[in-house]
Amino acid sequence: MITGKNYIGNQVSAKGNKTFKTFNPELDQENEIIFTEATSEEIEEAVLLASIAFKEYSKISGAKKAAFLNAIADEILGLDQDLIHMYCAETGLPEGRAIGERGRTVGQLRSFANLVLEGSWVEATIDLAQPKREPLPKSDLRKMLIPIGPVVVFGASNFPLAYSTAGGDTAAALAAGCPVIVKSHPMHAGTGELVASAIVKAAQKMGMPNGVFSNLNSSGIEVGQLLVQHPKVKAVGFTGSFKGGRALYDLAAKREEPIPVFAEMGSINPVVILPKALKNRHQEIAKTYANSITVGTGQFCTNPGLILGIQSDAFTSFIKNLSDEILKIHPSCMLHPTIKNGYEINKTKIISQKNVSVVANFDLEVSNNFAQQAIVTVDGTTFLENPTLHLEVFGPFSMVVQCENKAELETVITHLEGQLTGTILADDQEIENYENIILALQNRVGRIIFNGVPTGVEVCESMVHGGPYPASTDSRFTAVGVNSIKRWVRPFCYQDWPNELLPKELQNENPLGINRKVDGISTTEKI
Amino acid sequence: MITGKNYIGNQVSAKGNKTFKTFNPELDQENEIIFTEATSEEIEEAVLLASIAFKEYSKISGAKKAAFLNAIADEILGLDQDLIHMYCAETGLPEGRAIGERGRTVGQLRSFANLVLEGSWVEATIDLAQPKREPLPKSDLRKMLIPIGPVVVFGASNFPLAYSTAGGDTAAALAAGCPVIVKSHPMHAGTGELVASAIVKAAQKMGMPNGVFSNLNSSGIEVGQLLVQHPKVKAVGFTGSFKGGRALYDLAAKREEPIPVFAEMGSINPVVILPKALKNRHQEIAKTYANSITVGTGQFCTNPGLILGIQSDAFTSFIKNLSDEILKIHPSCMLHPTIKNGYEINKTKIISQKNVSVVANFDLEVSNNFAQQAIVTVDGTTFLENPTLHLEVFGPFSMVVQCENKAELETVITHLEGQLTGTILADDQEIENYENIILALQNRVGRIIFNGVPTGVEVCESMVHGGPYPASTDSRFTAVGVNSIKRWVRPFCYQDWPNELLPKELQNENPLGINRKVDGISTTEKI
Repeated sequence: MITGKNYIGNQVSAKGNKTFKTFNPELDQENEIIFTEATSEEIEEAVLLASIAFKEYSKISGAKKAAFLNAIADEILGLDQDLIHMYCAETGLPEGRAIGERGRTVGQLRSFANLVLEGSWVEATIDLAQPKREPLPKSDLRKMLIPIGPVVVFGASNFPLAYSTAGGDTAAALAAGCPVIVKSHPMHAGTGELVASAIVKAAQKMGMPNGVFSNLNSSGIEVGQLLVQHPKVKAVGFTGSFKGGRALYDLAAKREEPIPVFAEMGSINPVVILPKALKNRHQEIAKTYANSITVGTGQFCTNPGLILGIQSDAFTSFIKNLSDEILKIHPSCMLHPTIKNGYEINKTKIISQKNVSVVANFDLEVSNNFAQQAIVTVDGTTFLENPTLHLEVFGPFSMVVQCENKAELETVITHLEGQLTGTILADDQEIENYENIILALQNRVGRIIFNGVPTGVEVCESMVHGGPYPASTDSRFTAVGVNSIKRWVRPFCYQDWPNELLPKELQNENPLGINRKVDGISTTEKI
Repeated sequence: MITGKNYIGNQVSAKGNKTFKTFNPELDQENEIIFTEATSEEIEEAVLLASIAFKEYSKISGAKKAAFLNAIADEILGLDQDLIHMYCAETGLPEGRAIGERGRTVGQLRSFANLVLEGSWVEATIDLAQPKREPLPKSDLRKMLIPIGPVVVFGASNFPLAYSTAGGDTAAALAAGCPVIVKSHPMHAGTGELVASAIVKAAQKMGMPNGVFSNLNSSGIEVGQLLVQHPKVKAVGFTGSFKGGRALYDLAAKREEPIPVFAEMGSINPVVILPKALKNRHQEIAKTYANSITVGTGQFCTNPGLILGIQSDAFTSFIKNLSDEILKIHPSCMLHPTIKNGYEINKTKIISQKNVSVVANFDLEVSNNFAQQAIVTVDGTTFLENPTLHLEVFGPFSMVVQCENKAELETVITHLEGQLTGTILADDQEIENYENIILALQNRVGRIIFNGVPTGVEVCESMVHGGPYPASTDSRFTAVGVNSIKRWVRPFCYQDWPNELLPKELQNENPLGINRKVDGISTTEKI
């Protein structure tokens, strides 16, 4: 069923000589299928097809786009066990996670389908003409959001379904009316091809223009670089490492025509535990966080990698409890030997820094590619002075920073890099005495959580997944939730345009019945 | 009244040695006041003050921000003739224009005041908790737009009021809750200082934090470069040349923390005249366009610099009429000798290109700094082959491109760089036969106009002033209208946050009575 080839629009293609295989980290062996990397000729074909498809696809009705998105969801479900098995074989993640992530992926596709079917997302805004206005007549002006052009999506290693081939970025771009070219993630190329086949099948069934979707294999960085530099590509979505995201951002910024790159580049997700919470329930918090740090082998972008508090006996007890709890958890498999290797290197790097104490390090023997969780602790001054300690250790690892006092805690937060999330654990009314701490944390994150854990990103309209740099390249957008569609659209204004030639969204009759702002008033009425 | 000094927050300051004067282009002589360029120390002070002010100003209520914006408008009006005289002395523009632009500036400030007073612009979105949801409970998630941080604004040479010190960018940023540091335009430093004094007076009267606004003088590029590179600056607004805008964009993209730069960099604003319109009313169109090309001495970003059509007798007559009409208009003064000089150089450059015919060139003697308007014509093939012909000639100049046929016209449009506007002049139902032309034009512009002129940018919510690169650096935003506030804000999410500690916009009781989306339903009700 899997060919190892690229999808250039609706056609499979494998013109290149460079091949690669994916890896089963649990079995610690390569998978059998041979994937062929896309050539520059195939990249050119895919982009050209996308730019031709854009002419038609950018004008397709919301109802048709919704049918297409729902058909993709149906086809993905239709892949059934083939998809689940491939997912597990390429990630070392358990079947339950595969099924859960598939549900999330399908749910995302359907939520975008609902959005574009309803149609009000285009923010139709109409200011009617005032031909008799003095000193000058006023024109009729009508604005709506329109798609930006072909979008390149780089899938994430840690979300082979929900943030890859038919993941959030792809779903948002297709919903916006933008053709998508996926640079398939080499660690799960088989999962990617299966999902790509589902998208192509849905596109054909629903009569979408050829080129609305392509899927390109690659094991290195060249395919991605060529895609980002291609003049006909108009935007980029990326989820992955800081190094990768920044490299793509830089490439895009250096183009003759710079294009937006939305890169979500991870985070250490600081958690601040206030004194009363520490005193009243350090045991409970320790247990909750031992789970949050190790869930998915610590491979979530919202993994709590940094725990901050003010030194106290209760904090000392918390650290002891957290260590005990995390060592009770059986290690689990990482996504790939490269990721396991990166985890070991980064963990060792942190541990070797001055004044860092290891309080937990799972030291029983584990299978290859399984990660040994660890907790370290350090004082606030050391953390402030050593930027290495601010780096993300991707995996089941967290650093506890014991600050001397409230002022140092605030300073530490102020000096953090931008983060996806920040969490405050507090009891009773104590949060009211920490206003500056909260303001400082808010200034560094995209989402702030009260008495919870950062892991578990709800897909809903009020979610923000993004944040100040380097959590993302542009804090003005979210990567999760239907508002992520705004990354791929631009406002467009029609002045004195004949009613019958306007898009339906802006016609006097409001044939789609969408919500619009007419002369400043929100309404679904016709004009 | 004018000191020639910088405003570092509420204090005037002139620590530097580098001074400059502004120029009266109509009298062809320097104005008397000596301005002192900001030093790197003063820049540091202004940015530091802005970042401290941000802590308080970012939390100020919409009502207080509205009062501040209205107070700025009042103070600007209070400058009365001092402002009008200075404006005219520094620009060579007539008093009527000064008064008109002041009205527009004040109107913009008040429209942002209304926006933030009403308050729904923050797009409050609430998804309530579902503690009993299976398999996992759902958190309470609440999102709204919050300000991004201190913003640097570069004023435009051609809008000393409406797109400078208290212009659209400043008004939008202050409305968003962002402190503003203006890099004052050297050509109208006096006008800038007067307006800055009005803003500072308003800030003091309304009890705004010191540093919410600063105004820095500079005659060169160093002050702007230092500002854009400063780590505490979080976004940049620019209106001006392609060269300047791109340089700032590149600087911002190379920062350790890249920041968004919204640069509006001009446009040649293609106008397509379809055959029937040419045939039926070439005389009328010629007259209208002779005025549109020369209004404001051709110094509007939406000046129609390119007129496209299919060769015909009617088109030939149009060109003759346009030439006759434009030569009837008396030349007017340009903003500055540098701009006049640039106009002459660019005009001469275009005229000297192969196959370019000059059909009108005002050759009577004019005062220094007055621009002699001109019209040239060229065939479609030449225009396609020579990128020099695509360059903007800032001033009362337009190029008429005579295409061989409909196909060549479409090709020409497809090969245009991104533009602020595109205009279609058509009669009867002929527009329906030119669908591809319209789609191609839409793909290159931010605003499309039917049977009008591109000059005259209405300030209203449905306006789009921006467009594909190089019209602007990010086509996803507009620089005119209240939606321009979105350049300076980011979405922020509160998860399970205590109701009483939420911003008012997100509290259950909806104390501001704003429109919100609660569980997907748009409502002003409390929860």
